[in-house]
Amino acid sequence: MIREPKILSRNLGLTFNNPELFSTALTHRSAGAKNNERLEFLGDSILGFVIAEILYEKFSEAPEGVLSRLRANLVNQASLAELARAHRFGDYLLLGSGELKSGGFRRESILSDALEAVIGALFLDQGIEACKQWIRHLFQEKLQALTLDNWQKDPKTQLQELMQSKRVELPEYTLLTMSGLPHQQTFKVKCTIPLLKDASIGTGVSRKRAEQAAAEKMLQLLENKGQ
Amino acid sequence: MIREPKILSRNLGLTFNNPELFSTALTHRSAGAKNNERLEFLGDSILGFVIAEILYEKFSEAPEGVLSRLRANLVNQASLAELARAHRFGDYLLLGSGELKSGGFRRESILSDALEAVIGALFLDQGIEACKQWIRHLFQEKLQALTLDNWQKDPKTQLQELMQSKRVELPEYTLLTMSGLPHQQTFKVKCTIPLLKDASIGTGVSRKRAEQAAAEKMLQLLENKGQ
Repeated sequence: MIREPKILSRNLGLTFNNPELFSTALTHRSAGAKNNERLEFLGDSILGFVIAEILYEKFSEAPEGVLSRLRANLVNQASLAELARAHRFGDYLLLGSGELKSGGFRRESILSDALEAVIGALFLDQGIEACKQWIRHLFQEKLQALTLDNWQKDPKTQLQELMQSKRVELPEYTLLTMSGLPHQQTFKVKCTIPLLKDASIGTGVSRKRAEQAAAEKMLQLLENKGQ
Repeated sequence: MIREPKILSRNLGLTFNNPELFSTALTHRSAGAKNNERLEFLGDSILGFVIAEILYEKFSEAPEGVLSRLRANLVNQASLAELARAHRFGDYLLLGSGELKSGGFRRESILSDALEAVIGALFLDQGIEACKQWIRHLFQEKLQALTLDNWQKDPKTQLQELMQSKRVELPEYTLLTMSGLPHQQTFKVKCTIPLLKDASIGTGVSRKRAEQAAAEKMLQLLENKGQ
């Protein structure tokens, strides 16, 4: 049985002037034409902006690549679903009968979309400053736990952790060629990941160095594609 | 020879309280440690949010998929570089000697990044409302030209135009299987694009229908990946 949205909004510390916006944010597309998809579009962009601003301020010395990786670590389907689950979103979602039967209230994509839709609804109801305040509150623990140390790890570790946060398979490294005299060899390694069609190539004086170089290039590829 | 940033800011209709922010926005990473990369990170997220809000208001009946595609069409490297070029950004960019020699002031990625960095600088200097106003002004013509008609095209056309806007190779469709009795056949088609490793599969009662179904799925895949 679906619980009253009002209980959830109280638990979230939110009071809506227009409670209908909040109800719409909790309505999955399987439950009807008036659903949370447009609000999610809006909320996703607000969340990206607010977290970018927070990270920009908090890590005033961090280069752009680190800021991008920090944001990807904070804002992704798994982390948003975790926040939604912590607030028992599943008990309040309005789903169609098919999704209900297949356990849609537990699905990460549905939970994460609903959380983004709530941010979109809050924006329409109370504007950007209210969103900033609430997002800071929502991410408080995650933000406090963030330190730059984690993000100055070597590229292979960074890439591996990024794949884990996105819940996809880990990077694969393939030795392509070894060339040069013994003790002066150059290794060429290919790195592939499930998210991208393009591979990255790294070279180095050891296989390990070549793998690190390939991982670094892959991180750059991902940043360029905004992932 | 690089022209005075003040001339560009005047041409853009901007007056900075802190002109140094604007100069930093025009400084490519090849020119030094104090460059526009962090401002670009911030500006990119602001632009995404502001355009999302504008589209949400302007197309109050459009589903989320259409809003995403409209935004991808407005905000991409090619369209931002075009806007930067129209304002002669290339004449004002501070580049390192390597980039200068290789014509970096004409490169799309450098132009588009600088435009996003100017948005980030404007945000730090004058806040989000000033950004909204300026972005509306900057995109005025493009926004006026947008109509929903263009975005209710069939999925194959949409996918093709999306690839063109991102300046990558066009989608490829491969017939995988045909099955069933003559006159009751089912076609299965695979769609691949340069941006994604995953292919999409579509089925239909004709090859053409199967291709449309595969294109539709690919558009969804891209939306889920935020591209």
